[in-house]
Amino acid sequence: MVKPLSLFRYYPQPHSALILNHGIANEQQICPEPRPLRHRIGCVDVTPEQAGTAPANGPRIAVLVGGVGGARFLQGVRELLPEADVSAIVNVGDDVWMHGLRICPDLDTCMYTLGGGIDTDRGWGRVGETWHAKEELAKYQAQPDWFGLGDRDIATHLVRSEMLRAGYPLSAVTEALCNRWQPGVKLIPATDDRCETHVVVSDRDNSGERRAIHFQEWWVRYRADIETHGFATIGADGATPAPNVIEIISTADVVLLAPSNPVVSIGSILAVPGIRGALRTTEAKVIGVSGVIDGKPLRGMADECLSVIGVDTTAEAIGRYYGARSATGILDGWLIHSTDTADVPGVEVRSVPLLMTDPPTTAEIVREALDLAGVKP
Amino acid sequence: MVKPLSLFRYYPQPHSALILNHGIANEQQICPEPRPLRHRIGCVDVTPEQAGTAPANGPRIAVLVGGVGGARFLQGVRELLPEADVSAIVNVGDDVWMHGLRICPDLDTCMYTLGGGIDTDRGWGRVGETWHAKEELAKYQAQPDWFGLGDRDIATHLVRSEMLRAGYPLSAVTEALCNRWQPGVKLIPATDDRCETHVVVSDRDNSGERRAIHFQEWWVRYRADIETHGFATIGADGATPAPNVIEIISTADVVLLAPSNPVVSIGSILAVPGIRGALRTTEAKVIGVSGVIDGKPLRGMADECLSVIGVDTTAEAIGRYYGARSATGILDGWLIHSTDTADVPGVEVRSVPLLMTDPPTTAEIVREALDLAGVKP
Repeated sequence: MVKPLSLFRYYPQPHSALILNHGIANEQQICPEPRPLRHRIGCVDVTPEQAGTAPANGPRIAVLVGGVGGARFLQGVRELLPEADVSAIVNVGDDVWMHGLRICPDLDTCMYTLGGGIDTDRGWGRVGETWHAKEELAKYQAQPDWFGLGDRDIATHLVRSEMLRAGYPLSAVTEALCNRWQPGVKLIPATDDRCETHVVVSDRDNSGERRAIHFQEWWVRYRADIETHGFATIGADGATPAPNVIEIISTADVVLLAPSNPVVSIGSILAVPGIRGALRTTEAKVIGVSGVIDGKPLRGMADECLSVIGVDTTAEAIGRYYGARSATGILDGWLIHSTDTADVPGVEVRSVPLLMTDPPTTAEIVREALDLAGVKP
Repeated sequence: MVKPLSLFRYYPQPHSALILNHGIANEQQICPEPRPLRHRIGCVDVTPEQAGTAPANGPRIAVLVGGVGGARFLQGVRELLPEADVSAIVNVGDDVWMHGLRICPDLDTCMYTLGGGIDTDRGWGRVGETWHAKEELAKYQAQPDWFGLGDRDIATHLVRSEMLRAGYPLSAVTEALCNRWQPGVKLIPATDDRCETHVVVSDRDNSGERRAIHFQEWWVRYRADIETHGFATIGADGATPAPNVIEIISTADVVLLAPSNPVVSIGSILAVPGIRGALRTTEAKVIGVSGVIDGKPLRGMADECLSVIGVDTTAEAIGRYYGARSATGILDGWLIHSTDTADVPGVEVRSVPLLMTDPPTTAEIVREALDLAGVKP
């Protein structure tokens, strides 16, 4: 009587009970709670290997990452240690609801990059992308119209949004999406809670009155070119780290901070209560990698973000902003570019080439970070 | 302090209240209730003319319609009477949630056909359509994978789904979507309630056990080629007609039944409590147009539907199935194809060419229907 149904039922919810007399069990009978479906997508079961839960060899590595830079850094980790147990704790501060879709730019950039689906020229979004839905949304004058919502990308957001609405936490949704992409590292959102970076700006259209806009509006629509007063991680107060995040940091052999934006990528991860504490108490060494070379960010607009919080765009200033674990900070080691210098009290600083030209080159950066931590690859 | 915001906020709901201290009013203050936005889409106000509420000339015409055939019939009505007050009461029995999107095939077919966006070769969906999101959904193994979900079409469903989730009724959503398409007739869903046609079939994969599937699965996936026992309009018991539907039928100068599927298009409209009663009591004449010519449906699979309910696929049998208002039915007049004959007790039958080759040809069918009702165009 009770049939196995896929998560993606197309006539779900309240009516199912009404058709009991035609031989259909109701929703509660079919699907008492979502957990058994965690490793399913559609109707297909996946093995532990496919789900990334198989035993691994090599050091246990935790990496805090943002988007493009974080994804490329993870390529280097995977290149160096294809068999290792690598967990990426991914920023979700950029996440946003748009057009009824939950969009997770950093998770998707990591997933697409490691899964071979990224547009490598743009650095974000899907290769072979088209933009017809976006065109049509604009013709409906549906706002926002400034976000790059591609047709292929929409499928990811549809699956994610449907699963979230069905009650699955973002971490489980991410695991399900990764069943397809097989990124080779575990991608874990920093938190399953809604915890978004908003930016306080002066509203040009309203006599300069201050208002808060979502980070995506500040970043994508205004390109940070608007008078800015600060960042607020909305929802952080009540957020908790996603399942296993604290355990992963606490039991890792090494924790790496990818060369991601220290304010709105690494900073937004640290805003989730408990994560900073785990970094401070783990027995592993915590090694940061500078995303700023010769006073300029590798990519993105870290300089704009840093200036808002009064931190110089230099490897030294960022190292000091993170601070030493031996004081009140989070770093044991700080990897900076070979042409840079940095004096960060209590932190071992090492200069090496930091340009992530390709995965083998990036793997050498990872090797240096592990070496700084005293961990053998 | 309080700012006009578009319906399509991209950082909506619970967090807004949290950023009050940055000068943002909370959601309740900004948007106390949805009604004032009914004639808005995005941030743009529309005029009564654009919204289709301007005064009209000519007879007031109500038309009950399904999808492709209904849309083409409406083209004929508009061709004959471009200035008339035409209200199409559209079947929603085909409507379905898929991938978290509310899809309304008949409303969209009418809207795209009359608005110039239809793929005329297929008869449904958007011209210049691409299928990248569908391809990707299939790669995620997200079910259902048999439905034609186009990239351009998705934009319509995104706008609709977001508005529905924000609390707007389907009738208001349809009006907002039509602000773009300007179909030239008012498109009104038969009901704002969820009222879906399901089909009771023998499950081939499960020893022939009976189960109910959504009409779309029966129609699109199985092409009706599965042992079928009956139809059930799920949700009909508690449904009410959409605003103005009863008034439109009651005050019309003539009511037309388009040559749509008598079982799952016209029949599903009639399943909404109150609509059949309004047809029986209106002072207007009710004229039906046969969608069956020479024992074959013009399009679709009306024969498969009719056989399930034990009605022959002939103009006469369908006329008798609808029945005479003077008895317990809904027809005053019945328009059949010139080569057909039909004896329908209590109903005036007229034979005219019924092939809807193009809008001018279809306009002549409408002219005959009005003439049969004694209404001058």
